[in-house]
Amino acid sequence: MIRYHNAKIMTMNGSTAVTEGELWTEGSVIRYVGRQPAVLPEFEREIDLGGNLLMPSFKNAHTHSAMTFLRSFAEDVPLQTWLFEKVFPYEDRLTPDDVYAFDRLAILEYLASGTTAAFDMYFFPEASAAAFSEAGMRLTFCGSISGTAKDVDRLNDQFRKFRHFHPLVSYRLGFHAEYTSDESLHRAVAKLAQAEKEPVFTHISETKKEHEECIARHGASPAQYLDSLGLWEYGGGGFHCVWFDEADRAVFKKKGLWFVSCPCSNAKLASGIAPLTECAEEGVQLALGTDGAASNNGLDPFREMYLGTVLQKLRKNDAAALPAAELLKAATVGSARAMGLTDCDVLSEGRQADMIVIDMKAANLQPAHHIPESLVLSGDRMNVKMTVCAGKILYENGVYTNGIDADAVRRDCASRIARLTQ
Amino acid sequence: MIRYHNAKIMTMNGSTAVTEGELWTEGSVIRYVGRQPAVLPEFEREIDLGGNLLMPSFKNAHTHSAMTFLRSFAEDVPLQTWLFEKVFPYEDRLTPDDVYAFDRLAILEYLASGTTAAFDMYFFPEASAAAFSEAGMRLTFCGSISGTAKDVDRLNDQFRKFRHFHPLVSYRLGFHAEYTSDESLHRAVAKLAQAEKEPVFTHISETKKEHEECIARHGASPAQYLDSLGLWEYGGGGFHCVWFDEADRAVFKKKGLWFVSCPCSNAKLASGIAPLTECAEEGVQLALGTDGAASNNGLDPFREMYLGTVLQKLRKNDAAALPAAELLKAATVGSARAMGLTDCDVLSEGRQADMIVIDMKAANLQPAHHIPESLVLSGDRMNVKMTVCAGKILYENGVYTNGIDADAVRRDCASRIARLTQ
Repeated sequence: MIRYHNAKIMTMNGSTAVTEGELWTEGSVIRYVGRQPAVLPEFEREIDLGGNLLMPSFKNAHTHSAMTFLRSFAEDVPLQTWLFEKVFPYEDRLTPDDVYAFDRLAILEYLASGTTAAFDMYFFPEASAAAFSEAGMRLTFCGSISGTAKDVDRLNDQFRKFRHFHPLVSYRLGFHAEYTSDESLHRAVAKLAQAEKEPVFTHISETKKEHEECIARHGASPAQYLDSLGLWEYGGGGFHCVWFDEADRAVFKKKGLWFVSCPCSNAKLASGIAPLTECAEEGVQLALGTDGAASNNGLDPFREMYLGTVLQKLRKNDAAALPAAELLKAATVGSARAMGLTDCDVLSEGRQADMIVIDMKAANLQPAHHIPESLVLSGDRMNVKMTVCAGKILYENGVYTNGIDADAVRRDCASRIARLTQ
Repeated sequence: MIRYHNAKIMTMNGSTAVTEGELWTEGSVIRYVGRQPAVLPEFEREIDLGGNLLMPSFKNAHTHSAMTFLRSFAEDVPLQTWLFEKVFPYEDRLTPDDVYAFDRLAILEYLASGTTAAFDMYFFPEASAAAFSEAGMRLTFCGSISGTAKDVDRLNDQFRKFRHFHPLVSYRLGFHAEYTSDESLHRAVAKLAQAEKEPVFTHISETKKEHEECIARHGASPAQYLDSLGLWEYGGGGFHCVWFDEADRAVFKKKGLWFVSCPCSNAKLASGIAPLTECAEEGVQLALGTDGAASNNGLDPFREMYLGTVLQKLRKNDAAALPAAELLKAATVGSARAMGLTDCDVLSEGRQADMIVIDMKAANLQPAHHIPESLVLSGDRMNVKMTVCAGKILYENGVYTNGIDADAVRRDCASRIARLTQ
């Protein structure tokens, strides 16, 4: 067992309360959380956290990890130009080995950011499964098919292949978006989800244009249209949800769906500000994602949380809108549950040890009158001292500790990018 | 001399171009910037930057440094409640020694953020001058009087005392705001500024209420009213400027005034989004500040730059609004010049060596298709490897290297805060 002691602990098991204590792991599992007991067992390693904070790791509930290769490639251009001139032509050239390399670059950033799981939509799933599982990080695929009913065979194949592929890899049914597929696909995905009793995820209402075109096409918003087809009988959720109105949120509330918000990407691409305040008031479940590095341009849960709360204050013209702690829950427990990772959501005995250590002595976190609020409003990736996934320490004090050679990843990516963008 | 070599260098001397080369300092001064010459002199120390980026440091053009003590003290409450119940009563209890201690806490955060100068408005200037000069960081005071003409004597006294107080300390005339002082004060400050040929700064049009009340009171917006009194015959500027209209910006353009924006504070307090896009289009000079840590809640130039650009994209509904590089200029060169620090604005021979090293190998900055854009959209304080002010290395690889004991500062602040907030 490994002992993490002399810690502040925020288990996030029902609250954001912080207590003093310790936590023990055995393999991938948390064996004990609480005050120091009178009798201690033998440990393989004892880690004195020096009063720093142990808390659940961040989970990234919407991303396209391998898009790291297009980070800062084309800035300050309109969305359509960006997509059609600066993204799609380069994505067409990608090989599975490229995706493996660019996923590894994303993983370096995730681990330095305290993120241990990615809900990923991209090409070449075998390559991604290898990159994440080798690095010791969790990957939940989200199906991203587009087209017509016949494309659902591919979704079904991937689902069967990857749902129990590796202890760190899982799969959720999904498709790209309402506007990139037709009704036959939507009905076929709904049928598959009902047959398998599985949740379904999709990009939804990211832009005003897409939201309104669905209404023109189907006489209903994307959320209401897809719900009418029986897509979400076993749950699921949507990515972005920027243009959701009250009726859309009511669908998500009624079906227990996850509203996965990407505040930074929505801001950078001028898509809009999602109604997170209303979601929190109405009891719609919130999760947070970064989207890909090309449209953000970071993979940083702290920035998502910060923007998540301050944009609501601007949008509602109210400094009291959407308390900061709601974002902390969304970025950790909420995102884990959205991805189906209910065994690594909070710090409690029997759960997977997916957790981080935050340097509470850093100047930007002093004083810490209210720790959850400080993490959201003052916290920063430079405060991540340690990232642990499935009980294994993957990142500690700026060093990748699970065999990934950061310099080699960077050089490999640089030469691939030179080839792809020449 | 100290040699910084094997570097990417962004001098920001007229452009954000990046070249390969080296830089030498002698005492506080830059003696050489350019390619490696054929013959090298003797150096006291040679620092191989390993291909990392050397660039001008950030300057914080609006802050209340000692407000670190109220960081995260009261979150998610409306502005008036926050100010009158959670700020003013506690500020009343401050002693000069408290301000010295809380300034030192801010300095730790500034240095870890790559910031080497603060344009500060607060109480007990002697205490602040000691804290900053001892730490080796620059402090430019901004006068912050309120009240009536008789209060201008105090401004004049401070101006005379601090304008040549220490090589790292300077002083700019200023007053708190139009709405906390009467016309006699405004006229007396204008007279002093004209007599001394000095610029003047003030909080201006931060909230809609304050902006509109000035119009009701004086028949003109704060910018137009103050300009009509001859306040800015020798330049100056305003902090926040959220509610500036075209005519207000025209005053700033005509008089060469600095529009000092604080995007994070304005977002967190739900004050609004300043018209930075229009400023850039119209040629109004931009600088960036954090405001105090109690209303932000960080002292982080990266977050200000990021919000500075993405909020414009949301506000203008245009992903191409306000190119990211404009924010990089505002946070470095612009802010330096706003504070009158024209000798440490860019990296060129004869200028003061106020500069930082950015870890370009960090995963979040890879690939670096466009470095200035990457710094703004993907950059982070964890990328600051070194902070140099007046030729002295104050922070290097997470360690404070100029004698400041971070743990002692933290403990001292904690006990003072316990006393103040009990």
